[in-house]
Parts: sequence; structure tokens; C-alpha cells
Amino acid sequence: MAFKTDIEIAREAKKRPIQEIGAKLDIAPEHLLPYGHDKAKVSQDFINSVQDQADGKLILVTAINPTPAGEGKTTTTVGLGDGLNAIGKKAAICIREASLGPNFGMKGGAAGGGYAQVVPMEDMNLHFTGDFHAITSAHNLLSAMIDNHIYWGNELEIDQRRVVWRRVLDMNDRALRQITTSLGGVANGFPREAGFDITVASEVMAILCLASDLDDLQRRLGDMIVAYRRDKSPVYCRDIKADGAMTVLLKDAMQPNLVQTLENNPAFVHGGPFANIAHGCNSVIATKTALKLADYVVTEAGFGADLGAEKFLNIKCRKAGLAPSCVVVVATVRAMKMNGGVAKADLGAENVDAVNAGCPNLGRHIENVKSFGVPVVVGINHFAGDTDAEVQAVKDYVASQGAEAILCKHWADGSAGMTEMATRVAEIADSDQSKFEVLYPDDMSLADKIDTIARKIYRADRAEIDGKLRAQLKEWEDQGYGNLPVCMAKTQYSFSTDPSQRGAPTGFTIPVNEVRLSAGAGFVVAICGGIMTMPGLPRVPSAENIRLNDEGNIEGLF
Amino acid sequence: MAFKTDIEIAREAKKRPIQEIGAKLDIAPEHLLPYGHDKAKVSQDFINSVQDQADGKLILVTAINPTPAGEGKTTTTVGLGDGLNAIGKKAAICIREASLGPNFGMKGGAAGGGYAQVVPMEDMNLHFTGDFHAITSAHNLLSAMIDNHIYWGNELEIDQRRVVWRRVLDMNDRALRQITTSLGGVANGFPREAGFDITVASEVMAILCLASDLDDLQRRLGDMIVAYRRDKSPVYCRDIKADGAMTVLLKDAMQPNLVQTLENNPAFVHGGPFANIAHGCNSVIATKTALKLADYVVTEAGFGADLGAEKFLNIKCRKAGLAPSCVVVVATVRAMKMNGGVAKADLGAENVDAVNAGCPNLGRHIENVKSFGVPVVVGINHFAGDTDAEVQAVKDYVASQGAEAILCKHWADGSAGMTEMATRVAEIADSDQSKFEVLYPDDMSLADKIDTIARKIYRADRAEIDGKLRAQLKEWEDQGYGNLPVCMAKTQYSFSTDPSQRGAPTGFTIPVNEVRLSAGAGFVVAICGGIMTMPGLPRVPSAENIRLNDEGNIEGLF
Repeated sequence: MAFKTDIEIAREAKKRPIQEIGAKLDIAPEHLLPYGHDKAKVSQDFINSVQDQADGKLILVTAINPTPAGEGKTTTTVGLGDGLNAIGKKAAICIREASLGPNFGMKGGAAGGGYAQVVPMEDMNLHFTGDFHAITSAHNLLSAMIDNHIYWGNELEIDQRRVVWRRVLDMNDRALRQITTSLGGVANGFPREAGFDITVASEVMAILCLASDLDDLQRRLGDMIVAYRRDKSPVYCRDIKADGAMTVLLKDAMQPNLVQTLENNPAFVHGGPFANIAHGCNSVIATKTALKLADYVVTEAGFGADLGAEKFLNIKCRKAGLAPSCVVVVATVRAMKMNGGVAKADLGAENVDAVNAGCPNLGRHIENVKSFGVPVVVGINHFAGDTDAEVQAVKDYVASQGAEAILCKHWADGSAGMTEMATRVAEIADSDQSKFEVLYPDDMSLADKIDTIARKIYRADRAEIDGKLRAQLKEWEDQGYGNLPVCMAKTQYSFSTDPSQRGAPTGFTIPVNEVRLSAGAGFVVAICGGIMTMPGLPRVPSAENIRLNDEGNIEGLF
Repeated sequence: MAFKTDIEIAREAKKRPIQEIGAKLDIAPEHLLPYGHDKAKVSQDFINSVQDQADGKLILVTAINPTPAGEGKTTTTVGLGDGLNAIGKKAAICIREASLGPNFGMKGGAAGGGYAQVVPMEDMNLHFTGDFHAITSAHNLLSAMIDNHIYWGNELEIDQRRVVWRRVLDMNDRALRQITTSLGGVANGFPREAGFDITVASEVMAILCLASDLDDLQRRLGDMIVAYRRDKSPVYCRDIKADGAMTVLLKDAMQPNLVQTLENNPAFVHGGPFANIAHGCNSVIATKTALKLADYVVTEAGFGADLGAEKFLNIKCRKAGLAPSCVVVVATVRAMKMNGGVAKADLGAENVDAVNAGCPNLGRHIENVKSFGVPVVVGINHFAGDTDAEVQAVKDYVASQGAEAILCKHWADGSAGMTEMATRVAEIADSDQSKFEVLYPDDMSLADKIDTIARKIYRADRAEIDGKLRAQLKEWEDQGYGNLPVCMAKTQYSFSTDPSQRGAPTGFTIPVNEVRLSAGAGFVVAICGGIMTMPGLPRVPSAENIRLNDEGNIEGLF
């Protein structure tokens, strides 16, 4: 029997009208703003009306360092949500929205896989409810207003060489990374160097995902630093008077999107900040709304636990007052083998020794998550070729680390393959054993925060921060930004900054190349290694094969 | 008693659920894809299912040359639609979508005014159903794929100096008019000159508004010329293999949007091409769908009749097989006075002589429209300060031209102020007296087509087309493009190319500065005078005052 592809399974979904999905969370139809029959935004009035309700339990799904073998973090998030519903719990899922641009480069961007998916998949990989387009518009309005301010006399005395606010497009377009603008004479302004990032890298995206409401959104937008004067004093978005209009452009985008899983359970899909220069998880407003409406909320964090969970806990939870009741670390037998030195081509053969050799990567993530005071369960996302001996090797290793690993077959079986995990996660969450604490206090110096993450999470000997960067961090502390958390931008493939160092490396340092202040989002970014904020297209972009077929279905996108 | 503002009136609208509006046109709820409770897209399946139904009557609303006094073309279109419904006819309205960018420059963009408006006004001036964002994405995907093709080896041998496909944003941003891209070294491609236009100026927009269905859309997208080789042979969008993916990005945008008037009558709002370098009217698919569903369809064309109606008739009607049953030319007493030489500040005083002096502008438009074989009625859009003598002067003048003028009070009174006009228009349409013919045949040479419009519509002595431009036109004719209509890009403020020449000037020529081929849209653009395809923001952009107030309402946008 041939396996069905994700998109074939998604197209066979028996979707229910979105109003029925809302009803499962007691959202009346008038509080849902529909986008077609299978997507809706939840109205702000309704969100306001449930603020006095008790919160459900928050469950974070994270993973080992990603490998080309695939881990299935989103798939497990969706499967666990369905699994909790299947055992009679009232559960919802919260995940990120997909970026449109990259789907036209490499094959995209499903939301989960197999029988653990969120639908409508096509819409979620295209325009969805327009949130990212709204962010693009808001971001570029500010860009235009900055150059317009300079054009009409530059009353704020902006140093044109020090405009740090770039432009964005939700497109992979390397030609726009570095450009010269305002050529062509007087009517077009003052020529200067500029550039575009991809929309998910916009600070506006990070802010949308951290803001508690529209007032907070506008305040944070106003706080963004867009340029500096010759005396290096900052010019804020508020000085440009763009914050009000940007908030108007974002007012619908701020409302969380509701869709459904293949098993017709509610899923919030909202926001999608970059997981390197930003914190990489869905919006605070979606997570908090879901917690008011469901008894269990399953969410995920980008990349491996060293980056994604660390930021989820140290940035999002810290700032939003959230605390997870349980963390699921997703691992696969295949990824353990790759961490143990097996090449992708050889993953088909049983190799218990390689599984054992790769397990220390998982072990370090377990230990890290525990250090936040949160209970951990390992979910082994089952692949058809995994042998019983290999699965047992992972279970034995995890037991040796004082945790437990549960085999999850949601990809093949949906919620039926997730019963054991769902039951255990609910038990742990209900036991209230989580004693969540952030890794470092607000009042630690910025340099020490970076060093703390490098040593305690990555297990580096230290972070290397040169004198110039330390002076910059000190300057921000003097300006009142010292209490912000730090957002680490580092490769996701290794605990170190060398993507080829799989497993659990030691004896390395974390060189910090650059620091950036996201004053509106509320974090300081430490860039460790090369970080690309505008991707390019490959030699043969998938766009060349994307088309509507004779039945009107999209081909080539998945 | 103080007058209410447009936005105050719009916010008091008793909107009905969009499904009720659809029901007035016999569209079942399952064929409407809702966007919120007051907007919907009409499904392609439904559109396909009504193709065998008889067509209703098409009524075009156009106007004199615009003046700062305002004419109220859209207001009259909406009022006439409501008026026809009020006298018991089954009527629908078709108008364009608004561009988002310009609303952040000057105060924006209502859809009608007074008691003749389409709602929801806020949404229509912001993201609406995302059509323009989809066009921006599709356009810029092609841009990225062109530079990507060059980056990976340039198999098509594109001359980098001759890439004619620019990029677009729905934003007023003069800094992007002329830029240098791909700076920064090998990884970012080959530096070249480039630039951005505003989204409404994209050929993709023109195509979306002329395509009959998704197949036709993809074919036209493929036909677009994006660059030339060193031997000047064209490179098409199809060669870049972007047409399929662009069609996927546009599949929802191709479906017409349904909204409602203040009187709860159906209005299609779909597409919005530039009215200078493109044809400036709403989509063919919206107009044709409306004609299948309603007995009377009232639509409008951009700018004055010399530009808007000329293109509506010679481009849209020719290519889509449409024929209007009646044309309404909108005039105001105030605009007649301005055409007669009165300054805007002095419009308050009665001045019958000035009205008489300005009427020849109206007279020429009447004559022009009649030359297409279509019956004409003049609608005098009533302003509170107009005196009876002034109104009578316009009526008398129009009668002297063998037409009739009817006073319309829809702005103040809604459909009740439009009964006489609606009754008369329905009579004319029902009489089938229209003998519509295009101005020039397909097989006339491109230069002669330009000259014909200049002489017969503008009343110029001739079009001035120099040898180089004539050679270019000839080359296109040799390549098989000679049968295309021409799209004139000229100031809307005068019959001539001098915006200060109001009234009915004679003794001038029309200098053609540039010609462009829109091979996918299917017309040749003749640029006469300076045409700006990327606006800038003013000294104090309206964005500075746009914000959400304490009630959550948008301020400053209207």
C-alpha cells in the first residue's frame, strides 16, 4: 500500500464549518470573523469578555537540534492536541503562521504531517488571513515616512547614514538585501544605502507576537528605534508619528486566527517571528486566549530546545506571565542516528549503536528544560522504518536521565497513536509539579545574560563579547534597556555555533559578532555567526512547478 | 443643523449580513466566501453556473474633467444603483477597489459619499479582502525569479540593462522609484538599476481586471514581456516559468468581492488598475458576473470621460464584448464654474455666467460619448449651495446639445434623490436604442489609433509621434501586436496635456513622449506628459493623524 502524501490527506479532510469549531471553545458565531468557511478571526470584544476566566494548562512542545532526518515538532503538537481531545479533554493548539516567500523557493510549509495536520493547508501556506501582508504594509509605511521626513527638511536631524529601519517583503529576493535608494534626482530624495528583510524578520512581527492588546501594540511600535542622529541619539518610530497608522493597519492582524485539525479540533495559528533574530513562537494573544478557553493548550517553539524553548521560556513566558505545566521534547530514532554520526542515506538500516551515540544530544535538552523547573516527557515521533530495538534504546537512555519517553504514532494513526502520551501529559499537567523559573533575573547585566545562556544552555566555556560590543551593551544599560532579556541568534543545528557539531559538544566558546536592540519588541539580539534575514531562491525555485491543475487544485506547493 | 461626515454616516449604516445581500442576486450562502460578516467573494463555481443566463443592461457613469470642486462620480454610481432598486428594479453596482498606499498620504478614499456610499468603508480603504496584497506578491515573485535566473547562470541570456519588469508596493514611497539592487557582493547577484511602482500600476493588476477566468489570467501573465536580450528579442514571464505560481497567488483575488450600499443593495468592488498607464475600471469578471445576476448594472470609469470612458469603451468593452445601454455624464454646478474660470475660494457665490462659460467642457464630453453610438444623460450632482438659476443654466445648455440633464440629490437623500434619474435611465436602457461602436477598428495602425483618439476625443490638431516612437510602434506591429487597442496616459484635468487648460480647448497637439507594450494586458500605452507611477507622501502625511480612538474607531483616514 502506498502512503498518501500530506496534501492528499489534507484534501480528504472532513472539515467542519469554523463556527462549529468555535463552539467547541464556547465562542459564539457572532464573535468569529470568518475568512471563507474554514478560517476565522476571534473578535477582540470576545477576548476582552473572557479575561476573568481561569487559565488552562500550558504544554510546550520542543525538540532536539534539527537534522535533515526531520523531527516532527509541529506534527507532534497537532497530534498531542488531538490526543488530548480524544481522551476527553478540552484542548486547543497554538502554532505559528507560515511565511509565504520561502514556499516559492523550496517545497513548503505544511502545518503538521500525516494524520496530524492543521487545515486548510493551502491557505495557510499562501495568504491565509492576510496578517503577514498587514505587517509588511505597516513596516513599509514607517520606512516611507522616514525617508519622507528627511525629504521634507529632516526636522528630527536624522543622520541618513544611520537609518537602521529597513524595508520588508514576504519574498525570497536576494537582490533586495543591499540596495541604494532615492536615485534619480531631487524629486526622489537623498540617495542612501538601504535594504529589505523578509517580513518574518520585521520587529513589527516580533511586537505583534508579544503585545497584549492594541494599546500595548501601539506603545511598543512607538518605542522602536528607527535611526540615529549625528550625536548618536536615537530617533523613535513615535517621533516619525507612524505608530498610530501602523496600529490601524495591524488592527485585524492582532486578532488570533482559528482553524481546525484533521480531527476537527480547534487550532489557533497566529504570528510567526523569525526564530533567530526574534523569539520564534506564536502570538501571546493567541496563547493567552486559548488558555482562557481550553483546559489544555499545546504550543510549540521554533528550532531545537536550546534556541526555541530557551526563548519561549526566557522571553515569551517571562514577559507574558506564562508558565508551562509540562514540556514535551520531540526526538526521532532517525535524528538520534544522525546525531550519532550516520549519514542521511544510511538511515534505513537498523543501528542501535548509532542511536546510543546520538542520545546525548537529547539528554542535554532534557537536562536544560528541567533546569527551568518544568517536568519533561520525551515524545518519540515514530517512523515506519524504526525498529523495536532502536526505540527501546531511546527509551532506556531517557530513563537513565530520570525522564520517560513515550512512543507516538500520530503521523500514521492521528489521535489513536497519541493516547498514551496525551494521558501522561494531562496527568503531569494536572499534578501541578511544575515550578517554572526563568534562567536569569531581569537585573543581570546584558553581557552576563548572554554568557549565562552560552554556559548553562549551550554548555560553552563562555560567550566571547569584545570590548566594542560590551561598550554597546553598557550604553543600552545606561539608557534603561538593561532589564531586557536577550534573544540569541545562532545556528539551530548545533549547541555550538558550528552547524556540523552534532551531538553534545563541549570545549567551545560562543563568539558574539553583533548586538542589536529591538526596543519595541523588548529584547537585545546577540548575533552569533552569520544570520541571513533575506533568503534567496534556489537554482530551480519550487515556484517553477507551482500551478493550478485541471481540477483547480494547487500542484507543486507541497 | 450640522452635516454629518461621510464616515459618520457610514458608521451609522444598518448593514445586513452579506448572505442577505447575496440572496438579492440569488447567490446561495455556500457560494459566498465570507470575509467578516459584511464582505464576501463570489465563488468561481457559482460564476461558472450562471454563464447561460441572459445579461442585464450595462450603465456607465462617467464625468467631466475633474476639478478641485469635486464631481461625485462614485457617489452618483452608488446613488443610481440605489435609485434603480428603489423604483423596483433588480440592480447591482460595480466599482473599483481603493489603493491602500495613497490613503496614508492625503485623506482617503471613501467609496461614494453622503447617503450614497458603499460599506464597510474602513475595510475598503485598508486591506479589504487582500486582492492588492496578492497582486503585490505575484508581481514581486516574478521580479525575484528574474534576478534569480540571472544569478544562477542566465540561461535565457537576459540583458541585465534591459530588465523592464520592476517591483511594486502598495505604498507612496518616492525613495523606491529609482534604486540600485544586488549590491554587497557575489552572494547578492549582479548590481543593476531597478525601481518600484505602486501596485495599482502593475500590469498584473490590469490583467486581473481584463481576464475572463483563471486560464485566461495565466495565459496573459505568461505573455508579459519582462526583459530583452542583447539582440532585443523579448523574454516573457512564461520563459521565467513564473506564470503558474503567480496564478496560484491570484486565485482568490480573481473572485469578485460583494459588499453593500447604505441601502443594502449589492455592490461588486473588484480590481483597481491605474487610470493613466492602464484602463482604470473594475474587473471584467465582476461586471460580467453582475450582468448575469442583475437586470441593471451601474459601473464607472476613472477620471473624466475623455480618458475613463474612452478606455472603458475602446479597451474594456471591445475586449470583453460588453456594450453599455446608457451613459451618465456627471457634472456639478461648482465644476462648471471652475471650468468657467472661477477660483475654488469663490465657488460659494451664485455665478450663472461662469456656469455658462464652463459648460462647453461638458458639451464636448456629451458629444464624445454620443459618437460611440450610446445614449447620454447628464446627472447634475447637487451641492447644497447650488442656486436654481445655476442648475437651470446647466439644464438649458445640455438641452441645447440635444441631451437632457437631471438634478440628482442622492448625496443628501440617497435613493429618494435619484428617482427621476433612475426612471429615465431604465427607460433608455430598456428602449435598446444604444448602437455601440468602438472608435477605431483593431486593424488600424497603432500610430493612427493614437492620432484618432487625440483628434476625435481630445479635439487636438494631431498627435505628435516622433520617428523613434513610430519605429517602435512599427516593430510591435511586425511582432503581431498591431491589433491591440491603445491606452492613453495623459493628465485628467484637461482635454489637452496641459492641466491648466480647462473648458474645451482647441488649437493644441498631443505630444507622445513614450510608448510601452503591455503584452499581457493587451494594450499599447502612449504616455503624453509626465506620468508618475510611484507617488510620494506630502510634507504632513495623513498617516501622522491616523489612529484608533478610545472607542476603537479609526480616526484620520477619511
